[in-house]
Amino acid sequence: MTVPTTPRAVTRADVARYAGVSTSVVSYVVHDGPRPVAAETAARVREAIRVLGYRPNASAQALRTGSSKMLGLIVPELDNPFWAELAVEVTHVAAARGYDVLLANSDGDNGQERERLRTLSARQVDGIIVTSIQTHPDLSTVTDPGIPMVLLNTFFEVPHYVSIGVDAFRGAHEGTRHLVEHGYDSIGLVMGHAGAMELREQGWMRALRDAGRTDGPIVRCDFTRQGGHEAGLRMFGAGSGPRAVFVSSDMQAVGVMRALYELGLRVPEDVAIVSFDGAAEADYTNPQLTTVRQPIEAMARAAVERVLGTDDTDGGHGGLMPPELVLGASCGCSVRR
Amino acid sequence: MTVPTTPRAVTRADVARYAGVSTSVVSYVVHDGPRPVAAETAARVREAIRVLGYRPNASAQALRTGSSKMLGLIVPELDNPFWAELAVEVTHVAAARGYDVLLANSDGDNGQERERLRTLSARQVDGIIVTSIQTHPDLSTVTDPGIPMVLLNTFFEVPHYVSIGVDAFRGAHEGTRHLVEHGYDSIGLVMGHAGAMELREQGWMRALRDAGRTDGPIVRCDFTRQGGHEAGLRMFGAGSGPRAVFVSSDMQAVGVMRALYELGLRVPEDVAIVSFDGAAEADYTNPQLTTVRQPIEAMARAAVERVLGTDDTDGGHGGLMPPELVLGASCGCSVRR
Repeated sequence: MTVPTTPRAVTRADVARYAGVSTSVVSYVVHDGPRPVAAETAARVREAIRVLGYRPNASAQALRTGSSKMLGLIVPELDNPFWAELAVEVTHVAAARGYDVLLANSDGDNGQERERLRTLSARQVDGIIVTSIQTHPDLSTVTDPGIPMVLLNTFFEVPHYVSIGVDAFRGAHEGTRHLVEHGYDSIGLVMGHAGAMELREQGWMRALRDAGRTDGPIVRCDFTRQGGHEAGLRMFGAGSGPRAVFVSSDMQAVGVMRALYELGLRVPEDVAIVSFDGAAEADYTNPQLTTVRQPIEAMARAAVERVLGTDDTDGGHGGLMPPELVLGASCGCSVRR
Repeated sequence: MTVPTTPRAVTRADVARYAGVSTSVVSYVVHDGPRPVAAETAARVREAIRVLGYRPNASAQALRTGSSKMLGLIVPELDNPFWAELAVEVTHVAAARGYDVLLANSDGDNGQERERLRTLSARQVDGIIVTSIQTHPDLSTVTDPGIPMVLLNTFFEVPHYVSIGVDAFRGAHEGTRHLVEHGYDSIGLVMGHAGAMELREQGWMRALRDAGRTDGPIVRCDFTRQGGHEAGLRMFGAGSGPRAVFVSSDMQAVGVMRALYELGLRVPEDVAIVSFDGAAEADYTNPQLTTVRQPIEAMARAAVERVLGTDDTDGGHGGLMPPELVLGASCGCSVRR
C-alpha cells in the first residue's frame, strides 16, 4: 500500500530557477517593487509563475513584514442598506490605500460580535473597525491589546477608544425642527429599542420643547422595516395618530410608510415623515423620504485613516460629524431631487 | 544615538512558560482542541494570554496546516440589497463551518474583479466564491490554478467551473405567464444591459409567444434604481406604455415605481408589475412587488459546500435551482402577506 503524499508547494526559489533569475527578482515582480525589473525579465518571471502554478504567499509575507495589508471590519447587519453602504465605502477607502477588508457580520448579536472580534484579531489584521449596535461594545475578546481599533458609527465618544460617528442629537433636533417649521400641531416619534433616552430621542424632545410644544406620542420598535411597520400600525391604526412623525431610521420609515399605505393614509397629506440615516433606499420611497443624512463617505474615510494612522489629526479620540438634512417630499416640502 | 527596536512578538512558548504548561496545551486552549484541557489549566493559560498580550497567529497557522479557514467572496455591488443578502447568507453558512469570509467588492467592474481575484488567491484562502455580473468572468488572474473556485449566481453552466445559480429563463417565463393569466393585453419588458438575448429576456418572450401574444415594448437600462427610473419614464412618459411590465430586477422595479408615481400612474390599477430577485426591499414597496424570488439561502449553502468539498454531490458542475414566484399586490393579485 502506498501512502499518498501531499504535493510540495511551489516556492519562490522554484520560480527563480525556472526563470533563471534570483529570488529577489521574483519578489520584485510579484510585489511590483521595491526595485524595477526589466520588462523582458518580468515577462519571463510571470511565465514561470504561470507554468509552475506558483502562489505568492500572503501568510508568509505577513510573518516577514508584520503587515497583512488587511483590515478587519465588523458590521451588525449587512442586509441593512445603511450598513452595506458604509461597508462599501470602507472597502473603497481601504482599497485606495492597498488594503483588503476582511468583513465579518455580527448579526447585531453581542456574543457574535465578541466572537468576530476574537477571530479577526487572531488573523493579524493591521487594524479593526467595529460598527456596533451596542452602546458600549465589549472589546475584551481582542487577543492583542496593541491592535489599532476604531469604533465607527458611535453617537458619542467611548473612553479610551477612537470613536467616529455622527452628531445624532443635532440631526434629530434639525429633522424635528423642520417638522415644527412646517407648522404641524403634533409630532410623534418612532424610536428603535436603544439605551435609555438615546440621543435621537433627546434631539426630538429638545426640538419640541425649544418650540414650546408638548411631546407627541412615542412608539418603540426594532430597527427594521418590520419594526417600523408594526409601530406605524400601533401609532396610526386607531385613527388618532399625530400629524407628523420623526422616525429613528430609514428602514423603520419604510415600514411606517407601508403601514400608512395599508391604513389608506397619504404621505405627506395625512402624515408627514422625517427619518434618519440617508441610505439610498430612502431616495426611492414614494414619496421620497426627507431624511437626516449621515456623512457615510467622510465617516468611512476617517475610520480607515485613523486605524491606519495615516490621518493628520493630533491622535485625539475621533469625533462627531455633522449630519445633513436632505429634503425629499415626505415632510410636505414640494422639493424633489 | 540609539536605534529604536521593534518589540519582539509574544510567542506561544512565552505563554507556556508563564502558565507553566507545554506549548501543546497552549495550542489546545487557543484552538479549542484537538485534545481536552482541564478547566483550571485552561483558565491559567487564558490569564497568561491576557497578561502577556499574546496574539495567536493565523498566518503562521495557515503555513503549518495549509488552511487559512478563510473563504474569499467577490460581489459586484454590496450596496445592492440582493447581493448584500446573498453575501450575508454566505457568511452565515461559512461561519457555521468555522470559516471567516474575506469579502471583496468589484464595483461591477471587470478590471476590479480581476484584481480582487488576484489578491484573494494570494491570501491562501481555502476557496473563492465569485459572483460576477459578467456573463463570462475572466479568471486568468488567479495565481493558483489549484484553488477551489465556485461561480455563484450564474444563469447557466460555465465550462470547467462549478456554477451555481437560478433558472432565470424559467423564472422570467413564470413571472410573465402570471401577467398573461391576469389578462393584460400588452406586456412590456424593462431589461438590464446584459449579453445578447439574456435568459430573462428569452423567458419573457417565450411566455408571450406560448400565449399567442405579440412582443410588448422593451426598454434597456442599468441594473439600478436609477436605471429603472429612467426606463419607466421612457416607457410610460408619452402616455402610451403597456398595461403590464416584467422588470429584470427588484432594484429596477423600485425605480420604475418611482417613475409611475411621478407620472401619476397607479400600480397595479394602471400598470401591473412583476420583477425578479426577491430581495427584502421588494417586500416593502407600496404596493408590495410580486417578484420571482431567487433561492438565496440554498444558493449560498450550495456554493460554500461545493467550494469546501463538503457537499455530497458527485462532483459535477453545479446546477440551476428553481426560482419561486412570490405574490405581492403589484401584479393585480389582492394577496398581501
